[in-house]
Amino acid sequence: MQWYFVAALLTILTSSQGILTTLSQSNGKYLYDYATVPFLAEVFKLLLSTLLLWRECRISPSTRVTTEWKSVRLYVIPSIIYLIHNNVQFATLTYVDTSTYQIMGNLKIVSTAILFRLFLRRRLSNLQWMAIVLLAVGTTTSQVKGCGEATCDSLFAAPIQGYMLGVLSACLSALAGVYTEFLMKKNNDSLYWQNVQLYTFGSIFNMARLVLDDYRGGYENGSWWQRLFNGYSITTWMVVLNLGSTGLLVSWLMKYADNIVKVYSTSLAMLLTMVLSVYLFNLKPTLQLLLGTIICMMSLHMYFAPPNMLVDLPPQVRAAPENLKEVAVERRTDS
Amino acid sequence: MQWYFVAALLTILTSSQGILTTLSQSNGKYLYDYATVPFLAEVFKLLLSTLLLWRECRISPSTRVTTEWKSVRLYVIPSIIYLIHNNVQFATLTYVDTSTYQIMGNLKIVSTAILFRLFLRRRLSNLQWMAIVLLAVGTTTSQVKGCGEATCDSLFAAPIQGYMLGVLSACLSALAGVYTEFLMKKNNDSLYWQNVQLYTFGSIFNMARLVLDDYRGGYENGSWWQRLFNGYSITTWMVVLNLGSTGLLVSWLMKYADNIVKVYSTSLAMLLTMVLSVYLFNLKPTLQLLLGTIICMMSLHMYFAPPNMLVDLPPQVRAAPENLKEVAVERRTDS
Repeated sequence: MQWYFVAALLTILTSSQGILTTLSQSNGKYLYDYATVPFLAEVFKLLLSTLLLWRECRISPSTRVTTEWKSVRLYVIPSIIYLIHNNVQFATLTYVDTSTYQIMGNLKIVSTAILFRLFLRRRLSNLQWMAIVLLAVGTTTSQVKGCGEATCDSLFAAPIQGYMLGVLSACLSALAGVYTEFLMKKNNDSLYWQNVQLYTFGSIFNMARLVLDDYRGGYENGSWWQRLFNGYSITTWMVVLNLGSTGLLVSWLMKYADNIVKVYSTSLAMLLTMVLSVYLFNLKPTLQLLLGTIICMMSLHMYFAPPNMLVDLPPQVRAAPENLKEVAVERRTDS
Repeated sequence: MQWYFVAALLTILTSSQGILTTLSQSNGKYLYDYATVPFLAEVFKLLLSTLLLWRECRISPSTRVTTEWKSVRLYVIPSIIYLIHNNVQFATLTYVDTSTYQIMGNLKIVSTAILFRLFLRRRLSNLQWMAIVLLAVGTTTSQVKGCGEATCDSLFAAPIQGYMLGVLSACLSALAGVYTEFLMKKNNDSLYWQNVQLYTFGSIFNMARLVLDDYRGGYENGSWWQRLFNGYSITTWMVVLNLGSTGLLVSWLMKYADNIVKVYSTSLAMLLTMVLSVYLFNLKPTLQLLLGTIICMMSLHMYFAPPNMLVDLPPQVRAAPENLKEVAVERRTDS
């Protein structure tokens, strides 16, 4: 399977997620407990990965599965990072409004690239760095509040703590991604076995959250397992399946592609959601959405197109093979 | 003299132009007839160029000066194009409001590149085309109306004629630039002699406009030469000198650099004006101005940086000269 096919699928499913979630509401309200959705999505991913692992083991006895605790315990770390991230996110929102938080969320595009460079030691060309910055600028542009929209000048007005927490949040989100890529690529273990480990911890942490919510709420609505499927409609189940599927696609990309591919997929998904919302929910198309889309498309092309498609190579290199030695020597002394 | 020095100077003077013009008003009104400013600027350029031409002829008797009518008459064409452009501009503004007109003005960045390619047959790499589009997107982004600003949703609401005239206006403006570059480069004539021809026609056409304005106004304010310096302050004279100087710099760039350099200079000047206005006139900095500036800086770097600074050349080319022949042959069969 080609990575760009998986990436395109991830873009489509991620953008459906926002739209399905909106459609799953009744009169702008959730009839179900939204916290149950990620838990069920984790369970769905765990079950599917277990099934696929079992099938893989039956077909090929050489399936690689590392079961030492020393290796297994590493798979708890993404769950821990996400736990911290959720709390930082919550703290950030006490300082800044949601639209400022959303704008700051674009920082994770840049922080992912930085951690990708630092921890995974992957080199990016200058043009690729510029493409990353443009991707963040493009998604931000599409979110600029237009005239007539409610809140005004809140963007540079929040206390400094809000911005610092926003940066921390972007770094944690990037760290989770980069660490997961490291985990998935560090050995030749079966993808399904790696998924089983990730999603076992994921399910446990999500369940713990439900338990904690119950405890904090004083069991007013009963225990979580009693109201697990309360108010679930077909659309709610589609939200769960969709969220689970995007998770599986991200896992695949982490092993066979990389974090930057994932960042492009999810950023383009955000734009696609906005474009689809214009049609589905009869919103007005804004100039900033058009501009943001153009910027992100340029960024995509800059990052992924082969260099010789973008720039004209020096004429000697292309035209006269017999001159190449001198050219190369010149270039070496230049640098 | 290096072209980037002249380009930087043009950026600074062009951005001062907007600020000086604002400063030359009293309580938001012009005490002088603004139409006299471009006329006097043309006369200033003509006088200075004549002086410089006279000096050049004295110093070097080999100064090239083509005085055949067949050549001289070509210099009237830019003035004619500007005349048509002014009328189209006027017609456009009957259909669209000024902020939509301003936004559409960014189209001339792209139209200039297209005419530059078609008429002057200059090749741009794909990356340079992308940089041009990003420059237009960046300047447009900086002009997106923020929340709380007066007019709303006027952008996609004007009649179609307004947009068509806006496109025509952008093409005429680009045509004038590209044609002037063709004129300046078509032979080795002295720059000053070329300027003298351009500005003679420029002065005549601007004077004709003043005469026509008087005729249309029924000589209510007397003839133009009677009120030529009425209400002029030191600042007004600085506006005239500044406009004249930018014109001379543009001429220089047309001969020794090109239209794209000019487009970058004036686009960056627009951003610089906005940034300076924030400080000078106590305006609020907007997120869109920040984003637009980042986009334009990226575009500048993409367009002008040498390709090997932007992309990593294939490792074989850099590392092992002895492999180069095969690489080059491969690349040839690829394309």
